[in-house]
Amino acid sequence: MMEEDVKIVSDAKITPWEVTTTTIDYLKLIKQFGCQPIDGALIQRFERVTKVKAHPWLSRGIFFSHKDLDQVLDAYEKGEEIYLYTGRGPSSASLHLGHMIPFMFTKYLQEAFDAIVVIQMTDDEKFYFKEGLPLSEANRLTRENAKDIIACGFNPKKTWIFSNLETVGGSLYRNIVLIMKQTSGNMIHGIYGLDLNNNVGQLSWPCFQAAPAFSTSFENIFKERHIMCLVPMAIDQYPYFKMARDIAPKLGFKKPATIQSRFLPSLEHAHDKASSTGQNELIFMNDSRDAIGRKIREKAYSGGGSTKQEHIEKGANLSVDVSYHYLLYFLDDDSELEQIANAYRSGKMMTSEIKNKTIEVVWKVIQEHQQARQQITEEIVDNFMSAQREFDHTRHPKSEVIFEKQHLGFHFDPYFNKQ
Amino acid sequence: MMEEDVKIVSDAKITPWEVTTTTIDYLKLIKQFGCQPIDGALIQRFERVTKVKAHPWLSRGIFFSHKDLDQVLDAYEKGEEIYLYTGRGPSSASLHLGHMIPFMFTKYLQEAFDAIVVIQMTDDEKFYFKEGLPLSEANRLTRENAKDIIACGFNPKKTWIFSNLETVGGSLYRNIVLIMKQTSGNMIHGIYGLDLNNNVGQLSWPCFQAAPAFSTSFENIFKERHIMCLVPMAIDQYPYFKMARDIAPKLGFKKPATIQSRFLPSLEHAHDKASSTGQNELIFMNDSRDAIGRKIREKAYSGGGSTKQEHIEKGANLSVDVSYHYLLYFLDDDSELEQIANAYRSGKMMTSEIKNKTIEVVWKVIQEHQQARQQITEEIVDNFMSAQREFDHTRHPKSEVIFEKQHLGFHFDPYFNKQ
Repeated sequence: MMEEDVKIVSDAKITPWEVTTTTIDYLKLIKQFGCQPIDGALIQRFERVTKVKAHPWLSRGIFFSHKDLDQVLDAYEKGEEIYLYTGRGPSSASLHLGHMIPFMFTKYLQEAFDAIVVIQMTDDEKFYFKEGLPLSEANRLTRENAKDIIACGFNPKKTWIFSNLETVGGSLYRNIVLIMKQTSGNMIHGIYGLDLNNNVGQLSWPCFQAAPAFSTSFENIFKERHIMCLVPMAIDQYPYFKMARDIAPKLGFKKPATIQSRFLPSLEHAHDKASSTGQNELIFMNDSRDAIGRKIREKAYSGGGSTKQEHIEKGANLSVDVSYHYLLYFLDDDSELEQIANAYRSGKMMTSEIKNKTIEVVWKVIQEHQQARQQITEEIVDNFMSAQREFDHTRHPKSEVIFEKQHLGFHFDPYFNKQ
Repeated sequence: MMEEDVKIVSDAKITPWEVTTTTIDYLKLIKQFGCQPIDGALIQRFERVTKVKAHPWLSRGIFFSHKDLDQVLDAYEKGEEIYLYTGRGPSSASLHLGHMIPFMFTKYLQEAFDAIVVIQMTDDEKFYFKEGLPLSEANRLTRENAKDIIACGFNPKKTWIFSNLETVGGSLYRNIVLIMKQTSGNMIHGIYGLDLNNNVGQLSWPCFQAAPAFSTSFENIFKERHIMCLVPMAIDQYPYFKMARDIAPKLGFKKPATIQSRFLPSLEHAHDKASSTGQNELIFMNDSRDAIGRKIREKAYSGGGSTKQEHIEKGANLSVDVSYHYLLYFLDDDSELEQIANAYRSGKMMTSEIKNKTIEVVWKVIQEHQQARQQITEEIVDNFMSAQREFDHTRHPKSEVIFEKQHLGFHFDPYFNKQ
């Protein structure tokens, strides 16, 4: 029941800027990118090495693919430090649910590996790619988005959130320069489809996203040590890091490891990406319960029968049912999820019932997030974005498998108040 | 006798990276670039407004072209602050004579306008464009070159020398981002001939050179004030600033004014550019007197007769005689220069004699430079390159026309010891 049944249907071209197909073929993508699927053996090893229970997004195949995650586990097992890197292009004041997936998961990995996290706010990128966005607005959105990110519960002693506009320079700019020299316009064209019609900010920008995957970019955190980086991301971001991996040996840097998720489905289609640049209805992290209820009831595509009679006879098709997919993401309890799947698939549970359950589960996520976010003052943002402070590199001992309950990562965790 | 008689011969394409013709047609260049020639009326106004005697490089047509220099004089006359910007790509440990021309002239303009000077050391550019140059070496060359530049006698209270690798960030990076968004790959291709075969450092680099022409790039000096910039340069650098001028109104910035020089001729050809990237023999600022003597005697192209008899009968052709051209640059005394020109043109002075005079004059320039450079300690370099210090924006009153003797700018001036 946990298996996903995505069909292989197309030669989807995935770039970080658009998903050009409506039905994404994840298995083909793995092959195209040269990544590995995450299998049961790797998940078991992850639990054994980190002493942390696998996140449901691992066991349910939402984070479904990786590159060198095994090497990250090797390094962790040997007591070596690793760090995590993720980022955000600040294009809207509130994040939507899909935006939150990599942050929630990175927060989970921060606890699992007890590791430093760096979070790049790509205000320069958004300025290049979004027409009509003034720099000052990009700056404001950066801080607003930082609050949503901080609300995931990142450890302030182990997390640096940085704006490119405020931070590029020093060791980060030096590494960007090293990467830029290794990156021809033709490489950029081949990977991202950009050409001389684009502005040179856009053409050079992928180098700015690659640089934080190398620890020497952060002299304020790692001095000049070469530390392996693990980058959690949605699958569309992988081309950046394939580029970073290809360049790494030429610069004497460690190749960054990656772990990729599927996209949170749009409400309208279980195999679309929920995207703020498209026309889809989205669930934002600042939505009210009423708004969420309305959006899911009105827009969430149903795999149920077209009449009550038909539904009772034939049951629902889970693979296209968006409410079910959202439960797969946000309902932690495996046995409850299985019961719902069986009841709905067999026609015993009606569409309105699964939608009500999904509204309840999603609202719980959103509500907890809103409560956490309310506590994020400007001072807390300043602290998370401050470059010149002590970062905590120590790894705390774990004696047994933990994370039984709080594994979704959006719970406000005890680290936060230890600031 | 002071007139230059360069012939109009070709459709030379001038880019900052190469001069593709062997005989440069400066008049056509002015037209092509949309610049104005510097005429007698402008030189007289310059003297009247600045109360400083025109530099021989102005009166002799070596700085021969400008854009908006009249507006700089307007601003100065009204008591408004202006600043000067020049730069250097650190590609060799010692500068050659041709490299020094813009610095010597900028130092002269610093005194004439009593103005702030910013000097960009483009270590990032050299790394992109020069194969086999490690970043660490670019950094070392930056400091070595800074010593040659400081030795021109720049006022330490009014001069900032900055390395891009150390400085890009903050307000400078913000302006670079603003410029990058306005600069398409096609613009870069049209101006500089670069394309997708180049690396993206090269493609985006012109924006890094344009940014210092806008005062808001330097919050450490000008806060957020919009100050007009004057950029002295050799003519091949103009495309950068044409680009900066085109972009300025879109950003609400003041267009930078420019003043352009011809190239110091190579020893082998009076109408070539002396360039460290070509195969020409060059006079370096750390050459010995013997080396200079040998280079000028053996390599300096002579416009004299091919035999002694022919020379006595027909005299010399000054327009192709490199020794004469070097005197035009470095012999300050107008009446002595005129005597030499008449004697040599008429065949009374022999080639060996003018070469000996040129050796003496050039060695005086080099020797004074070497003496000045010896006094430049690492501490002085640190001070010139320090961003966080007080810059002197005051304009000191001038009561009469000054600069009678020290107008060549390579004399070690009294400001320096007032540090």
